[in-house]
Amino acid sequence: MATAAPDETAAMRRAIELAARGLGHTSPNPVVGCVVLDSAGRIAGEGWHRRAGGPHAEIHALRAAGERARGGTAVVTLEPCDHTGRTGPCSRALIDAGIARVVYAVPDPTPAATGGAVTLAEAGVDVEGGLLADDAAAGNEAWLTSVLRRRPFVLWKYAATLDGRIAAADGTSRWISSPQSRADVHRLRAAADAVIVGSGTARADDPQLGVRISLSDDEISQPLRVVVDTGATAVKAGARVLDGTAPTLIAVAEDADTAHLDGLAPIVRLPRAAEGPGLHIPALLQALYARDVRSVLLEGGPTLAGAFLAAGAVDKVVGYLAPALLGAGPTALGDAGITTIAEVLRLEVTDTEHLGPDLRITATPLRHALHEEN
Amino acid sequence: MATAAPDETAAMRRAIELAARGLGHTSPNPVVGCVVLDSAGRIAGEGWHRRAGGPHAEIHALRAAGERARGGTAVVTLEPCDHTGRTGPCSRALIDAGIARVVYAVPDPTPAATGGAVTLAEAGVDVEGGLLADDAAAGNEAWLTSVLRRRPFVLWKYAATLDGRIAAADGTSRWISSPQSRADVHRLRAAADAVIVGSGTARADDPQLGVRISLSDDEISQPLRVVVDTGATAVKAGARVLDGTAPTLIAVAEDADTAHLDGLAPIVRLPRAAEGPGLHIPALLQALYARDVRSVLLEGGPTLAGAFLAAGAVDKVVGYLAPALLGAGPTALGDAGITTIAEVLRLEVTDTEHLGPDLRITATPLRHALHEEN
Repeated sequence: MATAAPDETAAMRRAIELAARGLGHTSPNPVVGCVVLDSAGRIAGEGWHRRAGGPHAEIHALRAAGERARGGTAVVTLEPCDHTGRTGPCSRALIDAGIARVVYAVPDPTPAATGGAVTLAEAGVDVEGGLLADDAAAGNEAWLTSVLRRRPFVLWKYAATLDGRIAAADGTSRWISSPQSRADVHRLRAAADAVIVGSGTARADDPQLGVRISLSDDEISQPLRVVVDTGATAVKAGARVLDGTAPTLIAVAEDADTAHLDGLAPIVRLPRAAEGPGLHIPALLQALYARDVRSVLLEGGPTLAGAFLAAGAVDKVVGYLAPALLGAGPTALGDAGITTIAEVLRLEVTDTEHLGPDLRITATPLRHALHEEN
Repeated sequence: MATAAPDETAAMRRAIELAARGLGHTSPNPVVGCVVLDSAGRIAGEGWHRRAGGPHAEIHALRAAGERARGGTAVVTLEPCDHTGRTGPCSRALIDAGIARVVYAVPDPTPAATGGAVTLAEAGVDVEGGLLADDAAAGNEAWLTSVLRRRPFVLWKYAATLDGRIAAADGTSRWISSPQSRADVHRLRAAADAVIVGSGTARADDPQLGVRISLSDDEISQPLRVVVDTGATAVKAGARVLDGTAPTLIAVAEDADTAHLDGLAPIVRLPRAAEGPGLHIPALLQALYARDVRSVLLEGGPTLAGAFLAAGAVDKVVGYLAPALLGAGPTALGDAGITTIAEVLRLEVTDTEHLGPDLRITATPLRHALHEEN
């Protein structure tokens, strides 16, 4: 294989940017970006996978490039697919367009779609993989995790004071975090396929859970709103989560009485957790996975977050720390099955950023494998 | 007044560095650094105030400069004093040495010592104040605060998980924070005149509270170790805080039975707080101020920290946040008299730094004036 030229590296950076535009729209597919360079190395076409069922990134970019694709190079964030699903195989489209060279970042890990690189090489196309693979994988973190773990990627988000409180002693909490932090949460929601809260949060805050950011409407994908209402006691007619802005799913225990929810929202019945007050978290995630959910934003509260962490079902943590102190009130995280310091859940901080007065900390649990659910 | 020359600005930066060497040694005096430049602007002598009762920074620097001081410039972090205390006035010493110009950073706010600039100017010395005043004031933060508030400067330090826990549910806590963070705490201790813990911490951790860092012994000033043991039930014979490495003071309620502490450590009897379980915090701080304590490192635990915050007696907060989650266990901060979000204590983050895996957050309470004790 040849080494990537500087213009190919620049094109890959651009392709990774393009791919990110699909976040929140493409599940169960990955996000993918593609840049087609002509035979002189100039950008001839760009594309990204815009939504599940629509053309893949390569097809958009080839269409934009037209005849200039012939003899050119396709730079793509994920190995081109080799199978016919709702669209034809990209490997064939690239060959038919006369592409001479394909540079991709991340190999496709799915058994059905893999093999594109081999097909291309057998057709005489010069193929190179691995360019900016880490950056491209980070951009596809949720989808790659969902392929690996066969459940949705879970990002737990919380907003707390420096002393870990999410509300004051009397339950009031508006606003602990800054407007900048709250806007950032809407960005996380827009990139997720589903947003989950527990019954305590539903009862205390009556959240609407929609994405409210200043993008044109057709650019926003409203995530599925999921309330884990085990006993079917929290969500009632008139709850804001039942408004029409986005689909809603109420997850209840198999034995819950849901007569009062008839016709208000779809309900999924799930087994209760073996221990603790809630639902079996792996079963909840499987139910969402079956609905094509590949990324979940877990918004709390402390009881549900504890259950997810105890189940090893948190892949990433984003904490908005407000420079404030309360000294009393509910904490960000409830019982996660940890009783002594030797069992502490360690994380690695991957990013810290100031958002107005607040500090946003992004971290990844380190003991993931030990905690994995079954 | 003339404008400071570049060599004077560089000399002031050096003087601020020199001043910091005195931290922990000079109370009730400030830390001060001085650089004497000869008439050509070259460094002729340096000095800093090393300990209370010893020569002031200017005297050390003049001695080092000798005859080269004549016609030169003295660059000093604090306005030279004009009074005779344990040492003679620095204004007179500078005039006698033939110094032609004095550049200082921060005016002396104490009634007894102020006036040096006027005396110097009346003697024909060219005097300029305010050079790098903010930097120099930051270096003298504790002393300047103690002058303003007529009580010791209080820095509250805590180490917690991302969810605000200082120990697991069973009380175990070794080690939540990283070795780098723990070394940093010893640096804070070395710079403080006193370290304070409450009875809960004394009982749970049996802390020794000494400074253990790799400096030669004569560079370390061991702070006074203060245990707030209101009922005189926590500190017992054999406690590590009673070892011989540093002086210790046990603060108890006026009505406490202290027979079991006879001969073990000095005791100070103080009134109880009007509300809550502990001592009257302003009285405690006055008792320390009377013992020449100008800076206090408050190491916890949550009950005592809450009492200090409720009394408006915290000037700075340093939090060591470990990237870890516990979901249960005691929190960093207990009841601070805040019951609803409108009463939240807001702070301004002035610094964030990574210490190994941990994040150190430094913040200053914003509503200080509203909470001030009386």
